Amino acid sequence: MSVFETLESEVRTYCRSWPVVFDRATGSVLYDENGKPYLDFFAGAGALNYGHNNPVLKDAVIDYLLRDGVTHSLDMHTVAKRDFLETFRDVVLSPRELDYKVVFPGPAGANAVEAALKLARKVTGRESVVNFTNAFHGMTLGALSVTGNSMKRGAAGIPLVHATPMPYDNYLDGRTPDFLWFERLLADSGSGLNEPAAVIVETVQGEGGINAARVEWLRALADLCARHKMLLIVDDVQMGCGRTGPFFSFEAAGITPDIVCLSKSIGAFGLPLALTLIRPDLDVWEPGEHNGTFRGINPAFVAASAALREYWTDDTLEKSTLAKGEHVHRVMAELAEAHSGLTAKGRGLARGLRFPDGATAGAVCRAAFERGLLMETSGPDGEVAKVMPPLTITDDELEQGLVILAESVAAVAAGQVAA
Amino acid sequence: MSVFETLESEVRTYCRSWPVVFDRATGSVLYDENGKPYLDFFAGAGALNYGHNNPVLKDAVIDYLLRDGVTHSLDMHTVAKRDFLETFRDVVLSPRELDYKVVFPGPAGANAVEAALKLARKVTGRESVVNFTNAFHGMTLGALSVTGNSMKRGAAGIPLVHATPMPYDNYLDGRTPDFLWFERLLADSGSGLNEPAAVIVETVQGEGGINAARVEWLRALADLCARHKMLLIVDDVQMGCGRTGPFFSFEAAGITPDIVCLSKSIGAFGLPLALTLIRPDLDVWEPGEHNGTFRGINPAFVAASAALREYWTDDTLEKSTLAKGEHVHRVMAELAEAHSGLTAKGRGLARGLRFPDGATAGAVCRAAFERGLLMETSGPDGEVAKVMPPLTITDDELEQGLVILAESVAAVAAGQVAA
Amino acid sequence: MSVFETLESEVRTYCRSWPVVFDRATGSVLYDENGKPYLDFFAGAGALNYGHNNPVLKDAVIDYLLRDGVTHSLDMHTVAKRDFLETFRDVVLSPRELDYKVVFPGPAGANAVEAALKLARKVTGRESVVNFTNAFHGMTLGALSVTGNSMKRGAAGIPLVHATPMPYDNYLDGRTPDFLWFERLLADSGSGLNEPAAVIVETVQGEGGINAARVEWLRALADLCARHKMLLIVDDVQMGCGRTGPFFSFEAAGITPDIVCLSKSIGAFGLPLALTLIRPDLDVWEPGEHNGTFRGINPAFVAASAALREYWTDDTLEKSTLAKGEHVHRVMAELAEAHSGLTAKGRGLARGLRFPDGATAGAVCRAAFERGLLMETSGPDGEVAKVMPPLTITDDELEQGLVILAESVAAVAAGQVAA
Amino acid sequence: MSVFETLESEVRTYCRSWPVVFDRATGSVLYDENGKPYLDFFAGAGALNYGHNNPVLKDAVIDYLLRDGVTHSLDMHTVAKRDFLETFRDVVLSPRELDYKVVFPGPAGANAVEAALKLARKVTGRESVVNFTNAFHGMTLGALSVTGNSMKRGAAGIPLVHATPMPYDNYLDGRTPDFLWFERLLADSGSGLNEPAAVIVETVQGEGGINAARVEWLRALADLCARHKMLLIVDDVQMGCGRTGPFFSFEAAGITPDIVCLSKSIGAFGLPLALTLIRPDLDVWEPGEHNGTFRGINPAFVAASAALREYWTDDTLEKSTLAKGEHVHRVMAELAEAHSGLTAKGRGLARGLRFPDGATAGAVCRAAFERGLLMETSGPDGEVAKVMPPLTITDDELEQGLVILAESVAAVAAGQVAA
Repeated sequence: MSVFETLESEVRTYCRSWPVVFDRATGSVLYDENGKPYLDFFAGAGALNYGHNNPVLKDAVIDYLLRDGVTHSLDMHTVAKRDFLETFRDVVLSPRELDYKVVFPGPAGANAVEAALKLARKVTGRESVVNFTNAFHGMTLGALSVTGNSMKRGAAGIPLVHATPMPYDNYLDGRTPDFLWFERLLADSGSGLNEPAAVIVETVQGEGGINAARVEWLRALADLCARHKMLLIVDDVQMGCGRTGPFFSFEAAGITPDIVCLSKSIGAFGLPLALTLIRPDLDVWEPGEHNGTFRGINPAFVAASAALREYWTDDTLEKSTLAKGEHVHRVMAELAEAHSGLTAKGRGLARGLRFPDGATAGAVCRAAFERGLLMETSGPDGEVAKVMPPLTITDDELEQGLVILAESVAAVAAGQVAA
Repeated sequence: MSVFETLESEVRTYCRSWPVVFDRATGSVLYDENGKPYLDFFAGAGALNYGHNNPVLKDAVIDYLLRDGVTHSLDMHTVAKRDFLETFRDVVLSPRELDYKVVFPGPAGANAVEAALKLARKVTGRESVVNFTNAFHGMTLGALSVTGNSMKRGAAGIPLVHATPMPYDNYLDGRTPDFLWFERLLADSGSGLNEPAAVIVETVQGEGGINAARVEWLRALADLCARHKMLLIVDDVQMGCGRTGPFFSFEAAGITPDIVCLSKSIGAFGLPLALTLIRPDLDVWEPGEHNGTFRGINPAFVAASAALREYWTDDTLEKSTLAKGEHVHRVMAELAEAHSGLTAKGRGLARGLRFPDGATAGAVCRAAFERGLLMETSGPDGEVAKVMPPLTITDDELEQGLVILAESVAAVAAGQVAA
Repeated sequence: MSVFETLESEVRTYCRSWPVVFDRATGSVLYDENGKPYLDFFAGAGALNYGHNNPVLKDAVIDYLLRDGVTHSLDMHTVAKRDFLETFRDVVLSPRELDYKVVFPGPAGANAVEAALKLARKVTGRESVVNFTNAFHGMTLGALSVTGNSMKRGAAGIPLVHATPMPYDNYLDGRTPDFLWFERLLADSGSGLNEPAAVIVETVQGEGGINAARVEWLRALADLCARHKMLLIVDDVQMGCGRTGPFFSFEAAGITPDIVCLSKSIGAFGLPLALTLIRPDLDVWEPGEHNGTFRGINPAFVAASAALREYWTDDTLEKSTLAKGEHVHRVMAELAEAHSGLTAKGRGLARGLRFPDGATAGAVCRAAFERGLLMETSGPDGEVAKVMPPLTITDDELEQGLVILAESVAAVAAGQVAA
Repeated sequence: MSVFETLESEVRTYCRSWPVVFDRATGSVLYDENGKPYLDFFAGAGALNYGHNNPVLKDAVIDYLLRDGVTHSLDMHTVAKRDFLETFRDVVLSPRELDYKVVFPGPAGANAVEAALKLARKVTGRESVVNFTNAFHGMTLGALSVTGNSMKRGAAGIPLVHATPMPYDNYLDGRTPDFLWFERLLADSGSGLNEPAAVIVETVQGEGGINAARVEWLRALADLCARHKMLLIVDDVQMGCGRTGPFFSFEAAGITPDIVCLSKSIGAFGLPLALTLIRPDLDVWEPGEHNGTFRGINPAFVAASAALREYWTDDTLEKSTLAKGEHVHRVMAELAEAHSGLTAKGRGLARGLRFPDGATAGAVCRAAFERGLLMETSGPDGEVAKVMPPLTITDDELEQGLVILAESVAAVAAGQVAA
């Protein structure tokens, strides 16, 4: 038995799907310790939008270390942090006319969500939050309470309260008007809904099954929040940083959330970084009301600044992501046509192929792994095979991966792989 | 106004005490952007026990990056992670005859605490947890609910429940027997205390004011937990990794907690890493019941392994820390003798000088900063000036810092600095 | 100022609608201290189904007192309690083939609900409960948490949790299939709905606006509960004891709830009595796990037994209630036809006339009061004028009251009474 | 099997101690259905301070019924209610210079507590409440959350939160200063105690084991509440209405609570009635924010007014209660001297004899029952035999009961009754 089996907790998961030991990685390829390459359609669950060991970012980080740049600085001022803030302002916020203040809430996406919820409750004086079916916002207690997955919720060991789920876009039968139920609850003083401080939403639900909300649904949600004075929190941890094309996933809908959560690829190089962006008038915190040790990971600032400068000063990456996403969709749509019971889902380079059940989707991912492709499932029953490659993947690599995907689907359909 | 003031949230704090922009750092010294050096008695709030840009660790990290080692891997197997697990087992666990399984709960200390609480609740089927007065365990909702600070608790925006505070060692009048109240509550079926799943404790409360529990108190607590089948969780996030001398802070008491939380300096180089160590029979989690994106920061694994090999294969560092700690204590005791109202506190290289009030302690820290020394306050009213240098600080640097401390105390006492 | 104004809390309400001092009452008529009669279409909010000072009941109570029958007995055995239990079994349960055990949960309906919720949670090991929009179950904390009214919820002073509202029958647009949302949440392990211990429902929502659920909706709900192993609790506090015709309001739907809450008219004479009826296999309580002082109000047992014998050994009352209810409905339907914006609602002798707004409904009730008729509003905005006379009201009295109602509607419509 | 066994829930308790069927009762004597008399040292758990079928009260109630007085009136004005309010003002409040407004919170003590907690939270904007070890305040969810008994708490089926227990008087070792812990928690902003809205206390804990707090302890508590702006709620449900001598149990301490809960004997005749008395400036409720069906039980008003006039217009009853209480204490003290391990406890006519364990106390009560005396145990382990006769008990009856008590203790000590 390996040390992973003897020493690491049974809670480990991804390693069970891909039982090899990875060593090196560049671009869209990981290599196991025997040098065998694996094409990466997973991208660190969205944390590696710019690929593995992207040379631009790697060089910046190594240069920073070589010159003994401050590594860890809590929320002290550093040159690297200043550069990041200025770059984020100049490259991301200003061109989009977004007026946000930046909170460094801690290293991970869950911290960004916890800070958002705390602030929304403090500002409004209300406790309740509305989340959506199949939402995923993180594993710490505040973030978990607005997450849908029942196994993960059950692990809390205490009742998770203060959140009420509403139907995500396209959740019901297609005939029920959007927000009918939510509007009715809000309008009716006898409905029993605790008045919400905020609504938290992913524009595309990654863990929930690559469910992409329509832009008109998002717009209606933003409008609903404005009318009822609920803060709109967009959790862009997985779908931000270009995953759906534009830097923020909500840009397509033309809405401006009150609070935005970013993490995963904002650190660019796979290093932890998270931001909570807040409307300036919501910045009512006292100094230190929310804090934490890992809010100043300067190598992540350095990589993040380099990535913003490299990829977001023009629209090349955005266009490329949209084009690649369309291509993935076409291939998936063909697969869905060729095999009954399949559905192509998603937006940008967050794509999913929905199978009738989790067993089939899992078998396809196993078949893909045997063919050298890393893919994972998502959705409440693991019924969706996700395609989330680095945005920097080459056309050839993308094509190669999609061929493996098609072969894997065919192999499972042919009964060559046990579901 | 700088970008920090215009763009960053008002919640920022440390930068308000030290209003310069830091750039580089080596060993126990940070340099601001003008090259001015500052001696570091803060050490990243305990995250930099091995100093800034420790060359052994830095070289290991840079080598890893240069060879395109996998940076980010969730909970996949990697060579770097295997090396870390084996090193942690061989250098830390086995020599101490500690039998723990390792959970990677997410990047930060709060994640280690959240995972510990979730597991304790799941295992016992109880919701309630006992914490201690002036405890600090983190800012996410689960960790915050067992944290004492009222300002930070208030920021939650919801009532924090499921935790009951008990008096920490030496909290009452010195005449009340230890655990009298706690024992009585547990023994009395009519006491109204919800039966606790676990007790969470810091052996030395860092944020709470450098309160060091006596070893006999810790032993009695462990015994109490065993008798009442409450899990004992030691939060060693700040006091572990040698801060008090031995690798784990609880070693001095000869106790074996059921669950241990580690973070801060376990990543060694200032990069986020956290561990929750659990008794093997508590490892009842289903795969994926607790997860997260940033559980495989391989550069942190690399640095952590290098640090364990460099500093923990013999007792040199432990002895040095104890000796330096004794020296700090002597100097502080002299200061306390020279100036009325001061008390020397702490253990190992977690030392504090208690002032009559927060204003005085803050003034001393400001005076120290003007003299080129970084120190922070802690305690409920900020009344304790903390001395937590890197463990690798040289004797000369330590002496130099203590001289500044003495000068600063004198300057404040002389009214030369406004309290 | 009267002693009511100087000494009683501002929380008082009904006395504000009817600013006279009542003294005596018989049958369906109350008299104020000046002897002025008021016809009662309110019936103690459903607690006086058999009228005021019903001579059969009054004689039984006075006889009991005259012979020094035990008045107050907690849950001791008494002759009066035995007689009640046997009568309830023989007259109510056995003829309907209902197999329930009887809990005496305390004096009032809220106690019956609290006991039902406690038991459902204990039996299932789950915390969450599903309630319905515009539900009303009581003012104690457990009952309040499943009540919809936002003003009353707000008075709790703590967040009310563990309950999730679902749409009551006919709550949405008439096109959305019944239980679509509820079923979807239950079927989807990622929905975020905490698995419910129970569903609590009123078959006709009295306080919520005299909303009568269709029998097919109730049947579908019972079926849903059975399929998902949620206990079905019918709160028959206001609609039981014949208010809708049959003894239990759920009889019309042909369903058998797992738990039934009774109070109000079960005590028959206006004295407090409450029952929680539970499926025998749910009777898992330890002796004394739920208790209370006022669980043995023997005059109420005596009156209750007398009422069961007088009114429920044949179907005379049930038929009369249904006939009278139909008559009320006809008159209301005519009013709704004559005046635009009005709707006739309800079942049995729980009837409501819905107005476009609360101001109009309130004006109609005021106009009725001026004409010697007591009626109250209900619904989230007080937009429904309720007609809930004693079931024993004479045809003449009923007609007289309905004439006043029609006059009052006309007077308000004519602008003779300010809305 | 009797109908009690076949039809009533297993939750029933008192009937298990006294397995006979009671029929009639007068004064301090109950008679079973065979005419066998039982002397009553239980008094309806404090609800029958004026004895069974007290002729003054019975006549008033029967007269009221005979003249068709309104029985049930919610919070409408009635002549009987006005008389009660005026009598309560003139006989109880004014002579004691107590300035309270009266809330009718529902029929039972738990309602009085629920209303008190709701109001305290609304007024202060805080959620947390401090209760005491071995407190008993009721079985509805709000009241249960401040109750100590673990079996009863466990029956809630949800975690009971928002309450923190503090040590009741004489709870610790006798050396720890009163309120040391509570004061320290309040003074320390890092203690982790949520700022309390209120403190709820019984001056003598009845269910908790007849624990009588010293008057100086109560005074210090009132002072603590005033200094920290916590509302002081005295739950006088069991100890009010003269049980300890004066009308309110807190009179002896000379304190004025902010809120007082009354029930049990305020209704005088064993009929449900409850009051929440509130400082006038706390009367911030909107009309109807708290309501309920059984807030106007007019026969209870009638009996209550008659009792106040009969027993509280001079100090005869108070003096008699104190004298009888002293006598009970003397007898108990002699028993405690004669038998090792016994302790005499209590105040006024709330007296307890503490045995080494619950089995012995239970055996004594069984032995007493066999000798025709009704007594119950209390305390967390049922280790205290309670003596709580009607205050109107004659000296002969009291003596007769105490002789039986002594015989029963002797019989158990002699091993004649199995413990």
